[in-house]
Amino acid sequence: MKALVYLGPGNKALEDRPRPRLDAQTDAIVRITKTTICGTDLHILKGDVPSCTPGRILGHEGVGVVEELGSGVTSFARGDRVLISCISCCGKCVYCRRQMYSHCTSGGWVLGNTIDGTQAEFVRIPHADTSLYHIPEGLDDEALVMLSDILPTGFECGVLNGRVSPGSTVAIVGSGPIGLAALLTAQFYSPSKIIMVDRDPNRLELAKSFGATAIVNSANGKEVEVINAMTGGRGVDVAIEAVGTPSAFDTCQNIVGPGGTIANIGVHGSKVDLHLERLWNRNITLTTRLVDTASTPMLLETLQSGKLEPKRLVTHRFDLAHITDAYATFGDAANTRALKVIITAS
Amino acid sequence: MKALVYLGPGNKALEDRPRPRLDAQTDAIVRITKTTICGTDLHILKGDVPSCTPGRILGHEGVGVVEELGSGVTSFARGDRVLISCISCCGKCVYCRRQMYSHCTSGGWVLGNTIDGTQAEFVRIPHADTSLYHIPEGLDDEALVMLSDILPTGFECGVLNGRVSPGSTVAIVGSGPIGLAALLTAQFYSPSKIIMVDRDPNRLELAKSFGATAIVNSANGKEVEVINAMTGGRGVDVAIEAVGTPSAFDTCQNIVGPGGTIANIGVHGSKVDLHLERLWNRNITLTTRLVDTASTPMLLETLQSGKLEPKRLVTHRFDLAHITDAYATFGDAANTRALKVIITAS
Amino acid sequence: MKALVYLGPGNKALEDRPRPRLDAQTDAIVRITKTTICGTDLHILKGDVPSCTPGRILGHEGVGVVEELGSGVTSFARGDRVLISCISCCGKCVYCRRQMYSHCTSGGWVLGNTIDGTQAEFVRIPHADTSLYHIPEGLDDEALVMLSDILPTGFECGVLNGRVSPGSTVAIVGSGPIGLAALLTAQFYSPSKIIMVDRDPNRLELAKSFGATAIVNSANGKEVEVINAMTGGRGVDVAIEAVGTPSAFDTCQNIVGPGGTIANIGVHGSKVDLHLERLWNRNITLTTRLVDTASTPMLLETLQSGKLEPKRLVTHRFDLAHITDAYATFGDAANTRALKVIITAS
Amino acid sequence: MKALVYLGPGNKALEDRPRPRLDAQTDAIVRITKTTICGTDLHILKGDVPSCTPGRILGHEGVGVVEELGSGVTSFARGDRVLISCISCCGKCVYCRRQMYSHCTSGGWVLGNTIDGTQAEFVRIPHADTSLYHIPEGLDDEALVMLSDILPTGFECGVLNGRVSPGSTVAIVGSGPIGLAALLTAQFYSPSKIIMVDRDPNRLELAKSFGATAIVNSANGKEVEVINAMTGGRGVDVAIEAVGTPSAFDTCQNIVGPGGTIANIGVHGSKVDLHLERLWNRNITLTTRLVDTASTPMLLETLQSGKLEPKRLVTHRFDLAHITDAYATFGDAANTRALKVIITAS
Repeated sequence: MKALVYLGPGNKALEDRPRPRLDAQTDAIVRITKTTICGTDLHILKGDVPSCTPGRILGHEGVGVVEELGSGVTSFARGDRVLISCISCCGKCVYCRRQMYSHCTSGGWVLGNTIDGTQAEFVRIPHADTSLYHIPEGLDDEALVMLSDILPTGFECGVLNGRVSPGSTVAIVGSGPIGLAALLTAQFYSPSKIIMVDRDPNRLELAKSFGATAIVNSANGKEVEVINAMTGGRGVDVAIEAVGTPSAFDTCQNIVGPGGTIANIGVHGSKVDLHLERLWNRNITLTTRLVDTASTPMLLETLQSGKLEPKRLVTHRFDLAHITDAYATFGDAANTRALKVIITAS
Repeated sequence: MKALVYLGPGNKALEDRPRPRLDAQTDAIVRITKTTICGTDLHILKGDVPSCTPGRILGHEGVGVVEELGSGVTSFARGDRVLISCISCCGKCVYCRRQMYSHCTSGGWVLGNTIDGTQAEFVRIPHADTSLYHIPEGLDDEALVMLSDILPTGFECGVLNGRVSPGSTVAIVGSGPIGLAALLTAQFYSPSKIIMVDRDPNRLELAKSFGATAIVNSANGKEVEVINAMTGGRGVDVAIEAVGTPSAFDTCQNIVGPGGTIANIGVHGSKVDLHLERLWNRNITLTTRLVDTASTPMLLETLQSGKLEPKRLVTHRFDLAHITDAYATFGDAANTRALKVIITAS
Repeated sequence: MKALVYLGPGNKALEDRPRPRLDAQTDAIVRITKTTICGTDLHILKGDVPSCTPGRILGHEGVGVVEELGSGVTSFARGDRVLISCISCCGKCVYCRRQMYSHCTSGGWVLGNTIDGTQAEFVRIPHADTSLYHIPEGLDDEALVMLSDILPTGFECGVLNGRVSPGSTVAIVGSGPIGLAALLTAQFYSPSKIIMVDRDPNRLELAKSFGATAIVNSANGKEVEVINAMTGGRGVDVAIEAVGTPSAFDTCQNIVGPGGTIANIGVHGSKVDLHLERLWNRNITLTTRLVDTASTPMLLETLQSGKLEPKRLVTHRFDLAHITDAYATFGDAANTRALKVIITAS
Repeated sequence: MKALVYLGPGNKALEDRPRPRLDAQTDAIVRITKTTICGTDLHILKGDVPSCTPGRILGHEGVGVVEELGSGVTSFARGDRVLISCISCCGKCVYCRRQMYSHCTSGGWVLGNTIDGTQAEFVRIPHADTSLYHIPEGLDDEALVMLSDILPTGFECGVLNGRVSPGSTVAIVGSGPIGLAALLTAQFYSPSKIIMVDRDPNRLELAKSFGATAIVNSANGKEVEVINAMTGGRGVDVAIEAVGTPSAFDTCQNIVGPGGTIANIGVHGSKVDLHLERLWNRNITLTTRLVDTASTPMLLETLQSGKLEPKRLVTHRFDLAHITDAYATFGDAANTRALKVIITAS
């Protein structure tokens, strides 16, 4: 089968690889219909993710059709349309029992990282019963691909952890795909203000059309002043970090009001300064989280009910044969204005 | 009347000062019977608290008797025995409505800071109805003084924010008065392990007698290894920072397990390193808080029911006339083994 | 001044009464601009509310302008436009400290019940600082009148207590004004289904235009079967009782699914059957509540942000001089299709 | 093997039955070392539980040793000592994902009900990975048997659902084994008062020795007056129903204070009166629950740490050969003073 293989820092190729086979009773083999590329895949290609070694098929998102099932899988049948969660989980360990699937002792984020992933014609999914989801009738495949990772990440790490609630004031620092996913799902809770921050005017305009009540261009470095003015000096109730840099984190520290929450989504490569000399007495909560995808059933419900339109994140489409073009487009978002690219595998 | 007055960095004196007078309808004048000294008073004396200016009577803890009442005070009568909260609050503003009294827009921590405090024969208490508490029959004054600040601080900032719960594993970094207050109140929730960390063997022994299930001397810098070994490598559920230094905060970062909480109590004078490059995907919650004393009614209940013995924190006793000796004893805890000192004012 | 006075069961009249005067330092006198009639006022007129005695001026809702202030009121000035909460609260007692203002030991629901109310040109408001709310610029008076009682009631007793959440399935039994208020505010949390139940086709149509995803006419007594079919036999997550009858309560018991919540809003005049023989092992939560209006600041925020359009509940308008016509219209809703009637007092 | 078999209403016998065999990959066969009898077993014998049909081996509690394992079981090995949960759960279905194991679509309370149970030498446990628990070193078997059902039931249905918290006032109506289990676990949260109610002076004395702060004999029907007097007329924060009768439920309704919780544990055979005409505006929460045993890992922690001494519930001991004597003793508790009886099977 065709698969996109990581070949070491800076290198990748679409190669011919043997079809995956069942390894455990609880495995499933899924034929991929649609997949996508994540910012994390770019991190891997830069060599920033040591757990992912050369030879690995990339990708941890996608929808497909069940091709083969281990004897222990009870919830799915051959031919079922399935949504693949970016997090594989056993459902049994101490972390799974707490719905902290991200830290499953025999799972977590393994797809396209420590085992072969979804940017291929077929993929092996461990712990299939608890790592795949049935697709209700009538849902669009492209919208569903957004539920593998980006939507639950924006929702769980940003919106839920940030305790967004009716009437609250939210700022989302970073208006890339993940910031926009937080923006879409923050609206589940009817906050009164959602302020989007970015340096890219195109993304800010997009944010507005996605439901932002205000946009702040941070290119001039004045975002803290502007946001504090917008909130009458009280700061925001929820500051969501959706970039993964010390400077975006610092913005969050400077705009959060007393009693507020900083919810970090960004992947950070280095330590940051935490200004406890100012924050120790401000009754602040700060959270970090790797997505657990515990909210996937709920997101499927909201998708079905029409409360969520994640397909708006899709900007480009490619065939698996042209996945390297898809990478080029996604990797040059400043020029291509790409958010999420859909890759059709079969 | 006699009062302990801050005279600028390094200077203080017991002086004669006029008795305070009612200023607003909602004020009360309280005759102090017993007060104490807080670590924060030492910070002021070092010149570290710019909001407190020379000439200020220090002290924000104490019990006493109502001497005089503004016409708007409805909950107290002359002669009532009262507990003074270290936090004054109006009960009306947006923060008070959320029980975040620490950030009351016309109160907060003002006593012995921006207005005259309790280390005197009399004190004026603003917003008396919501800043004083009736003392139930039969409670000991010395135990009650511990409820002005140190007990609610350990409980709210450490135990409640840390979400200590039955069966959980707790480490408290710092075994001074505030760490011990957290230790006493953590036991309200029956955690299975409470590990106390300090460099002072005396304080660690004391911690054991207060209910610690394990003690770790951090003098050799191996506390992280030792605690991780104690928890089978999984880390603690709750790490409470009760010192206020970058190094104690760092210990907390290194021992907290996935899904755990770091609850900061310590007063920090400088920024700290936050290792988001390790923590971004660990599902950690970090909290800061200035005590709100919203838990005071509950603490009074537990005191009455015998579930709490805060008097064990009292090591020394002085008259107001000898308060400078009390400061000397409290300020030299390494040698005097002082925890809390009681000062009898009348 | 003109005022609508309760004269005993079945009797009321618009009378001339002296203007109210300040009684306590914390009182305010408010000139009413707009008020409304509540279902509870009809209960009083039937003689069902013994705490309300003949001679009482009715009404507990309204907006107006501050005319006079006691010396202890600090948050308002003469001439301020204010929203009157149907619940008066001291902000100091044990219940107020828990935000359970409905049970304030010197307040609660007193207006138009145990003290004179708002269906008059002027009203005395006790505990003004904590029982009135500033009206932000640009908000419509008629929309605001809905925030005195009906909106917080639907929201707090129905939506909050019912724990409506994104993706959940909600049924609201009763589509009168209070059921519709619950419907409007349930949408703050993006449930996937909101099923409205009533016998009146007009109200059901209205419910649809207010955002119901399904409507069920209960005139034929088959609502339980229909709703269980709609939920694939699993029952609803949240059943909101918005009528106040044994039969509506029974419907709720029969449609709530395992792990679900029954949130009672209705005022009940008699006991009901609780089928514990079926429910004891169903992991059900049942709640009751008199509105606390603790959510008023949040509702004002959502009103300002355009997330809430309560004015849609207003169907008729009268002058105070014609308030008995307003009562007739409101009391004959089946024919007049009245929901809320606005009475302009000045 | 020997097994206690239900033979229809009023009839049971110790019979010879074939050893159970593995049926599914996820099954385990456990050799029972110790088991016990539950009040529910008596209900079955009265013919009150239609799902349990004649021929069924009774019992849903016990500890034992893993004898045989299906190929899909990954968390246990032959020879492991295990605690059997009274609730079997798949870990995969919509209810298991919410930790509502009691409603598992292929499990729940099945042992000794719809499949053969634990009052035998061997038992087949379905969904073994998620329905058995490893026993830590050094724990006593008799104490552990209390963790199969009675302790998690008292804790989850009574204490957790009742939201017992530090300083709160709790009344437990019923001082039988389940009421005493609630009493033991309520103390995890340091309530200030725990009032135990019963008609049996022996059980009340026992309750005192288990930690009750007050006892009330309800034989004279004055328990409501007495408890209301004890709480200064305010009522209790938490009323736990641990009997399963309309009259015990009624007591709970009459003693719960505004804002309080009624947590039902009792198994009810008929409907009860719910006095909504008094409770509709009292801000009450009422909960029902079949135990989920989601707290088992936590209870094992507290057992290990010495915070919990469930062995105090054990009053009598028998061999499996004499299990009918055990039933006689347990069924005549008024005379035998039996709480829990331990049956040694091997």
